[in-house]
Amino acid sequence: MRGITVLRLGHRLHRDFRITTHCALVARALGASAMIIAGDRDDDIIKGIQRVNRAWGGDFQIEYRKEWRALINRWASRADALVILATMYGVNLLDVTKRLRKESAEKEILLIIGSEKMPAEVFHLADLNVAVSNQPHSEVAAVALILEKIFGSRSLKRSFEGRTYEVVPRSSGKQVKGVRDSDLRE
Amino acid sequence: MRGITVLRLGHRLHRDFRITTHCALVARALGASAMIIAGDRDDDIIKGIQRVNRAWGGDFQIEYRKEWRALINRWASRADALVILATMYGVNLLDVTKRLRKESAEKEILLIIGSEKMPAEVFHLADLNVAVSNQPHSEVAAVALILEKIFGSRSLKRSFEGRTYEVVPRSSGKQVKGVRDSDLRE
Repeated sequence: MRGITVLRLGHRLHRDFRITTHCALVARALGASAMIIAGDRDDDIIKGIQRVNRAWGGDFQIEYRKEWRALINRWASRADALVILATMYGVNLLDVTKRLRKESAEKEILLIIGSEKMPAEVFHLADLNVAVSNQPHSEVAAVALILEKIFGSRSLKRSFEGRTYEVVPRSSGKQVKGVRDSDLRE
Repeated sequence: MRGITVLRLGHRLHRDFRITTHCALVARALGASAMIIAGDRDDDIIKGIQRVNRAWGGDFQIEYRKEWRALINRWASRADALVILATMYGVNLLDVTKRLRKESAEKEILLIIGSEKMPAEVFHLADLNVAVSNQPHSEVAAVALILEKIFGSRSLKRSFEGRTYEVVPRSSGKQVKGVRDSDLRE
């Protein structure tokens, strides 16, 4: 597995704060390596996700890039990379799950997600447009389901090194425990 | 399968407009029967989802209820219903997938999702608290992954009766076709 980077296009300050944050949290929780945000610069999101890393562990990378066309083209030209666009107009995720699993073993994946308005050219830049159901939907859910299909169910049970806290799963109520450094070096 | 209703707690006008809308779109796309919104009344979301029904079909129900405690208690007291709360503090979805599939064959399910601040009592009202990964996450992704696990992968390929449009899935570009009434009666 070479790793998956999520590219969030067209982020708008304030208006997209929560959706972009949810995309980043889901990308991190389900095992993507990184997220790149294009559009408006928004340091609050980046700081928020870095706080999540400190509390819950892992080294999920998040960064801002003003320029996205050249970035996509660079990835698309690499023989060891696969560029996917999540869109309701793409081929159904179920019909390409096998291919995605196979390719993800050998290639790095760039998973592009848009915001409400997607520039028309984006629909032609990726190697493959993938639909998580061909219904109007959510980029947050698209990230979740694409990562779950590629990584398999183990993506729902990840824990991360360097965490300060961890959840004690319970069928009722709410329990969190602190994790001492010594526990992490087992 | 008796049907799944999503209950969105603590909706706040403006602030939660897009996240709640995404939850509703995902609930509809993946096969829930209905969503109930509690918190601030927000007719724009309800109208927006009804427009989606008209364009893309189906009879996904969406409504507002001011009162949620009695509603949850009513569901929780029914022998033919199962009340689930989606929370990162719950038992991992993977550990209860079988149970959820089995129970969903016999029982109606109420799937509760919260917003940022969840009243503490909610953690004790459900029959079962379920975590989609025990990491900070997103209620949009929780709805997506819980429905996908309960319904199985077919949930990603639903189309709905009475639709005006449908997507022609493509690996690149974007194509939608109109659906004539006569096509729907096959």
